[in-house]
Amino acid sequence: MPHSPLIGVLGGMGPLATVDFLHKLILATPAGRDQEHVATVTWNVPQIPDRQHYLAGHGDSPLPAMLHGIRQLNAAGATRIVIPCNTAHHWFDALAAASPAPLLHIADATLAALGASDGPVGIIASRGALQSGLYQQRLAARGIPYVLPSEAVLAQAFTPGCYAVKRNALQLGGELLQQVGEALRQHGATRLILACTEVPLALAAVNSPLQAISIDPAQALVQAVLRYWQQAGSAAPEPGAGSGRATVAP
Amino acid sequence: MPHSPLIGVLGGMGPLATVDFLHKLILATPAGRDQEHVATVTWNVPQIPDRQHYLAGHGDSPLPAMLHGIRQLNAAGATRIVIPCNTAHHWFDALAAASPAPLLHIADATLAALGASDGPVGIIASRGALQSGLYQQRLAARGIPYVLPSEAVLAQAFTPGCYAVKRNALQLGGELLQQVGEALRQHGATRLILACTEVPLALAAVNSPLQAISIDPAQALVQAVLRYWQQAGSAAPEPGAGSGRATVAP
Repeated sequence: MPHSPLIGVLGGMGPLATVDFLHKLILATPAGRDQEHVATVTWNVPQIPDRQHYLAGHGDSPLPAMLHGIRQLNAAGATRIVIPCNTAHHWFDALAAASPAPLLHIADATLAALGASDGPVGIIASRGALQSGLYQQRLAARGIPYVLPSEAVLAQAFTPGCYAVKRNALQLGGELLQQVGEALRQHGATRLILACTEVPLALAAVNSPLQAISIDPAQALVQAVLRYWQQAGSAAPEPGAGSGRATVAP
Repeated sequence: MPHSPLIGVLGGMGPLATVDFLHKLILATPAGRDQEHVATVTWNVPQIPDRQHYLAGHGDSPLPAMLHGIRQLNAAGATRIVIPCNTAHHWFDALAAASPAPLLHIADATLAALGASDGPVGIIASRGALQSGLYQQRLAARGIPYVLPSEAVLAQAFTPGCYAVKRNALQLGGELLQQVGEALRQHGATRLILACTEVPLALAAVNSPLQAISIDPAQALVQAVLRYWQQAGSAAPEPGAGSGRATVAP
């Protein structure tokens, strides 16, 4: 059954966030039986050098391991590929260039979900993802102001909160990441982009009121996947060979 | 990075049960950081003909679609393969024979988790899984007596309970599936095998006291995966080519 629509998921960054993305995709799919759910193949292999460490100047590049995953997903027949990790999008262009199956970009999907904003947007993200400017560039292009965490907030709340989630300490992670969101609110943010896959998990674990003004890029990526799935399902099976980057229809 | 330990998951039966298995695997892994989690590749493609319908004499065989998944997991480099669905194990031998990577059997894993039993074991499962005799054969081989639900209990409690869970009516599903367990207890069962992925969810939803005497085969399969992962991780990388079926060490 080659060339049927098949979503490849480059996971492992981290493994729990990958499973959370798959869970959100299932819950968001309007399916009445197993066979109506989205077909996925997920490379959840976390033996990838640490992205945040590398972007901070330490350790090996994660790119070779990520390229290996992209190759495996293409070999498995993926017709679109998503990466439910914001920081990994630092390498998006290199990955897209190496992938016959087009990649859907998490920040494109998030901007589509954000729509118009009536105030500054706070971005909760790793130092590496912030340095990549994934969200800043897209918000600026739309004329939407944004607020970033300070160095002190990153060091004292974001980074320890993120690693707490990675070791399954969700309550502690939630309390720390809630502090990051509160700091952005104090600097004027009226919406928050939770641009690190650990953050929505952690805020949910502490039942944070910030969830009401937050956009979860993983959830936005789910919506982008469902738009593709519905289009592909209603069209003739497409040839597997494409190239580069797909347009995410709003 | 060929030949590194990699768990292939033949999913899609159903897609939510597959994700639940992946989630249980992550929660059970003693990992302090992303890189210490189990490497998995998951074929969660639910476009497989209905297993229970086929076993009841209707519709197409699911075997070709399952064999396609097994081929894709091998092509992706899986060194062991698991199927987090009891009913699908009806086709276990044909799948294992076609797979260079050995398959871990969910009922072998469950028997390893059961250990010695001091009384009859009740099996809560679909008609199809009961007809396959997966658990009955293994219990009999160990001299452990077992109790099965009657036709009346299957029709009046198990099947409606299962479908209630599938449409998210967890309370009703829990009450009905609790009745199945109670009926088995009245016939002497001192332990229960919850050999259908809906059952553990439903019993948890009603906080059933039966949970204390129950074994969840998905959780047992997680433990089998972790035993393999720990052995493989402490040994030299193994050649990817094996054949047939793996022994699950108790």
